[in-house]
Amino acid sequence: MPGNTFGKLFCVTTWGESHGQGIGVVIDGCPPCLPIDESIIQKMLDRRRPGNTKSSTPRKEPDQAEIVSGIFEGKTTGTPILIRIENRDARSDAYQPYATLYRPGHGDFTYDKKYGIRDWRGGGRASARETASRVAAGAVAKAFLDRDNIRVTAYTEALGGIACETFDADAIARNPFQAPDMTAAERMETRVEAVKAAGDSLGGIVAIRIEGIPPGLGEPVFDKLDADLAKGLMSIGAVKGVEIGSGFSAADMKGSEHNDGILPGGFASNNAGGILAGISTGQEILLRVAVKPIPSIAILQNTVDADGNPQTISVKGRHDISAIPRINVVCEAMVCLVLADHLLRQRAIAL
Amino acid sequence: MPGNTFGKLFCVTTWGESHGQGIGVVIDGCPPCLPIDESIIQKMLDRRRPGNTKSSTPRKEPDQAEIVSGIFEGKTTGTPILIRIENRDARSDAYQPYATLYRPGHGDFTYDKKYGIRDWRGGGRASARETASRVAAGAVAKAFLDRDNIRVTAYTEALGGIACETFDADAIARNPFQAPDMTAAERMETRVEAVKAAGDSLGGIVAIRIEGIPPGLGEPVFDKLDADLAKGLMSIGAVKGVEIGSGFSAADMKGSEHNDGILPGGFASNNAGGILAGISTGQEILLRVAVKPIPSIAILQNTVDADGNPQTISVKGRHDISAIPRINVVCEAMVCLVLADHLLRQRAIAL
Amino acid sequence: MPGNTFGKLFCVTTWGESHGQGIGVVIDGCPPCLPIDESIIQKMLDRRRPGNTKSSTPRKEPDQAEIVSGIFEGKTTGTPILIRIENRDARSDAYQPYATLYRPGHGDFTYDKKYGIRDWRGGGRASARETASRVAAGAVAKAFLDRDNIRVTAYTEALGGIACETFDADAIARNPFQAPDMTAAERMETRVEAVKAAGDSLGGIVAIRIEGIPPGLGEPVFDKLDADLAKGLMSIGAVKGVEIGSGFSAADMKGSEHNDGILPGGFASNNAGGILAGISTGQEILLRVAVKPIPSIAILQNTVDADGNPQTISVKGRHDISAIPRINVVCEAMVCLVLADHLLRQRAIAL
Amino acid sequence: MPGNTFGKLFCVTTWGESHGQGIGVVIDGCPPCLPIDESIIQKMLDRRRPGNTKSSTPRKEPDQAEIVSGIFEGKTTGTPILIRIENRDARSDAYQPYATLYRPGHGDFTYDKKYGIRDWRGGGRASARETASRVAAGAVAKAFLDRDNIRVTAYTEALGGIACETFDADAIARNPFQAPDMTAAERMETRVEAVKAAGDSLGGIVAIRIEGIPPGLGEPVFDKLDADLAKGLMSIGAVKGVEIGSGFSAADMKGSEHNDGILPGGFASNNAGGILAGISTGQEILLRVAVKPIPSIAILQNTVDADGNPQTISVKGRHDISAIPRINVVCEAMVCLVLADHLLRQRAIAL
Repeated sequence: MPGNTFGKLFCVTTWGESHGQGIGVVIDGCPPCLPIDESIIQKMLDRRRPGNTKSSTPRKEPDQAEIVSGIFEGKTTGTPILIRIENRDARSDAYQPYATLYRPGHGDFTYDKKYGIRDWRGGGRASARETASRVAAGAVAKAFLDRDNIRVTAYTEALGGIACETFDADAIARNPFQAPDMTAAERMETRVEAVKAAGDSLGGIVAIRIEGIPPGLGEPVFDKLDADLAKGLMSIGAVKGVEIGSGFSAADMKGSEHNDGILPGGFASNNAGGILAGISTGQEILLRVAVKPIPSIAILQNTVDADGNPQTISVKGRHDISAIPRINVVCEAMVCLVLADHLLRQRAIAL
Repeated sequence: MPGNTFGKLFCVTTWGESHGQGIGVVIDGCPPCLPIDESIIQKMLDRRRPGNTKSSTPRKEPDQAEIVSGIFEGKTTGTPILIRIENRDARSDAYQPYATLYRPGHGDFTYDKKYGIRDWRGGGRASARETASRVAAGAVAKAFLDRDNIRVTAYTEALGGIACETFDADAIARNPFQAPDMTAAERMETRVEAVKAAGDSLGGIVAIRIEGIPPGLGEPVFDKLDADLAKGLMSIGAVKGVEIGSGFSAADMKGSEHNDGILPGGFASNNAGGILAGISTGQEILLRVAVKPIPSIAILQNTVDADGNPQTISVKGRHDISAIPRINVVCEAMVCLVLADHLLRQRAIAL
Repeated sequence: MPGNTFGKLFCVTTWGESHGQGIGVVIDGCPPCLPIDESIIQKMLDRRRPGNTKSSTPRKEPDQAEIVSGIFEGKTTGTPILIRIENRDARSDAYQPYATLYRPGHGDFTYDKKYGIRDWRGGGRASARETASRVAAGAVAKAFLDRDNIRVTAYTEALGGIACETFDADAIARNPFQAPDMTAAERMETRVEAVKAAGDSLGGIVAIRIEGIPPGLGEPVFDKLDADLAKGLMSIGAVKGVEIGSGFSAADMKGSEHNDGILPGGFASNNAGGILAGISTGQEILLRVAVKPIPSIAILQNTVDADGNPQTISVKGRHDISAIPRINVVCEAMVCLVLADHLLRQRAIAL
Repeated sequence: MPGNTFGKLFCVTTWGESHGQGIGVVIDGCPPCLPIDESIIQKMLDRRRPGNTKSSTPRKEPDQAEIVSGIFEGKTTGTPILIRIENRDARSDAYQPYATLYRPGHGDFTYDKKYGIRDWRGGGRASARETASRVAAGAVAKAFLDRDNIRVTAYTEALGGIACETFDADAIARNPFQAPDMTAAERMETRVEAVKAAGDSLGGIVAIRIEGIPPGLGEPVFDKLDADLAKGLMSIGAVKGVEIGSGFSAADMKGSEHNDGILPGGFASNNAGGILAGISTGQEILLRVAVKPIPSIAILQNTVDADGNPQTISVKGRHDISAIPRINVVCEAMVCLVLADHLLRQRAIAL
């Protein structure tokens, strides 16, 4: 299958461009009789909307999800669910120069090389706007996971070099950066303002926790649960790295430190991050993803045009300063899609 | 599709258990008329064989690849290529206790939870021995990539906390740890001996470089080249993290630092790691993977048996001290499989 | 993948219900830079529209195709193409009784058994209206095939027991039944009127010819070109049988009669129907499909309600008397989808 | 996925050539804990073996199935099952002329056109010998279906123009042609002898009955149960047509004749053939397939060599006179594979 479909049984296909008529997703394989309405989707989409922090774009998209098919009298019917989100605040004029000028850090150059044609308006298909479709689909997956009390939470672990030093779950909702450390959140705000003033942008780290997952999910040997989670998260545009459990710190550990001993009451630790041999253990699953700084910056950069001539560029469109925290709910959505898919796959073979 | 198949056009399915009759792979989708013989496969398999470093298992498997189908008069015919590797030095008796005792850090517990049955001999399907099948398939993929002068090289960046500080490409083949730094390699040897004596094990970091890749490979939005590479690498048992280009260090960078400016002669830097918006730029692709310590250690650990009773365990089979360096060629193989698949996918839509 | 997706490289997913907001299709994998506009799609959709023969439903759907994504400045971009067709003339009230009453010959009973829920309005997802989405996708596939001068033509070979006895290609467009025999077409008209008056319905046979196909398409051993054509055609609701080349008459032939001898100028005959060992020979491909009578009839039938109680039913909605000739273009569309997919698959492995 | 894989959850990949080292299949996705041993597979394979009728080839292959992986202590483990069948009686010399001479009715010409290379020994990959792999896989699927009391029976409905006129289930096992009519079977024998003496070959019709199928199997809209059955059956080399239920006779029926009325005790008839809207009704499923005559005949035919020069050919290898009755168990196997796959798919979404 071409590249716009994710999942083997809980299967989503996103479509649409940043400045076209709209974007959306088809979900095929969602089990029937699951209560779904637009408010469930909207609630998750609203968490992705820009404009609630100083790090976010001023583009004002209502991002209103419309269910077009697959739901009857408030429930899934087992047939494809089409969700549609109109583009309403697209201003393509600002992007006209990028029709022939390659923005560093963006897909302009590579789309041209791959396809020989490119919808340059707002980044076209390569725009982060595409992730709204993922969030809409993720909301349906989340509703499915809710039935089994599986909970997925993404939060900001670091932003612009400022790392959280404490973990207070309640704090996440109380600061605009979704950081579990109020002190760190304040420092993030100062950092964001300074960088914004300089016309620059920031990266960071998102952490994701999955609770309530049953043991037994994941398909050896290639479709390991961690492998599919890694793919799902790495497929989000800005992500440059994914860790599970101990992650890169495992490299420096000895087996006697890294192994999670097993006690009658459960595992003694969780360096595995809740996955052994690609299959969930039943423990919490822990993931961390590295997010690169937003490539659209006002600071002057070297580039070339489509003919290869040297040019300079200052990207002044309406952009976030950091993909964080808007990317957090996108990470949650991708994780929900992976889990819903693996839940269905396990149901198929379960005794 | 179930979980033992990888790739959409260059498609491999591995089969077999550590102590069964043998293991192997079916490759379907390899283009016809590609010269392939067993020596090509054997050469790559030999790089995975244990016994050439002090960190490796004493199990002596010849790992002899036999081509059973798909090759006629030395060339691929376009039909499925079956490669078979017999198990010859399996000693299952040593594993009898693990029929009912869960080895920490292994898939014993999770396989039982998932399937309700488990081939406990040598770890069964969850054994790292399965990766020999991937290497055999990777050798065929590598032969296909060779035609386009695409080269993949994996080497050891760190082992047991000892990181390489210099990069000397020639050094890689001159020390048993495949480290590009001879001084580091010596320190690794000392480290490995000490840990081995203590009955413990080590993790490390593998780096992978892809050279000669054309621009345009990778399928937005989910089958991005980096997403598929991350999945392929994370599907290798011991891997706990994957980075592309700047990786986790991107989190601390500003956009003005991270963006790779474009000059008429090419990109000014390569924080992207050779992939933008999921599509190859034509630059070198850089990947790093975190490898956890081998979970089989002689040091006594807490565990439970299948009935949940507390037990202690000391795993004394024939094991590596570290998955490094044997895992390096497995990483290469997985990368070759991803690239061969994306090359074919691009050929299908290319103008 | 769930069941609403067809094709491996030229990949279409249809969505929508008969009386919901609308129906449509996502096409993923269409090569870039192909000129496509709504008129191409509309032209093919118009051939499926009811109302131009006495055998068709009085439901007046404009079936206006709207391209929502994937086309930029009149050309495909290589990204997903969403095509949307609104439902405008749905009158669900007439279907209210079928919420609990199973219409014989329809999917009401089986959808309830499978999903435990069913959108009964106009047959919901099981409505033949879904085939408009296939036709829209088929129009894009046809545009792709046009570049290689591959032509697909479906016509009526028999309707209501009246078979064409001559083949006049020009006649097809000159009678409302798309029959290549004007005399037969006249008899069909009489037959349709009589059956319509009796509140009954008719079946028939559609023939499909594919010209200009290159040799080499089709993937042994399961994805043979004939196997994929059979699946595509059999997936159209009313189809009960598919033949290729000699079809069922092959059963009575001897090898010496059936084999198509090969001469320097080409094959001496075409009992194979243009496909040998699942791969196209380069000859014309010939297919025939059996179409069952429309199950919605006014004549009283026995049925049960959802509680299993005996009931009688007379289906009086707005229905065709026969799926023919509207189904003809649906057959063409499905064939185009299969061919486009196999063309891309062959490009991937071609030398 | 390339063309040698069938099924989405119960997924089989066949490999091997007629005169290579052997043939076989990997089954991935078979649920764990299913009792399987080689005798189950052998029993089904033995039904496909030649030599028990005068219509069959004198090639004496023991067709001994060897389970290489995926079974532990007599049960499936949920991991890939490799089954291997060695080639032991291959005599390739007889095929040497066909290295450059195209046998009419065979894939020699099309394989050359597609791949530019061809293993001409015994027909290579295109040999009907490949179907032994399908039968081996089908035996495992059949064991899975047995748990739900689903039974699949294929029998000969016609051979060489001689159709069965009565149906006596017990007769099927009592004559070498697997015909349910002993009188017809005798006439078939006479017919076969005469045609064999003339150096010619015969086609026929196979009927398949599926009993015990639960309602609810089949995935609208493309992966309808009938569509997948049609594909599976049409992918068998000699098959030229597939009918379900009323099949081609539906074309001449009126809706009032074709519709199966529903009574409190069940359906009043079964023109649907047990499938409505692509989903099983719970009734018996009825299929018929047209089988072309074996193309290998001694009678002189016109052909060309690989350079296009006119030649004549008389194919004198060891061949069946008719694919019937050996193809019958192949049809059963393909049907079992389709049903096992759809059973798993339904389990994944069932409430």
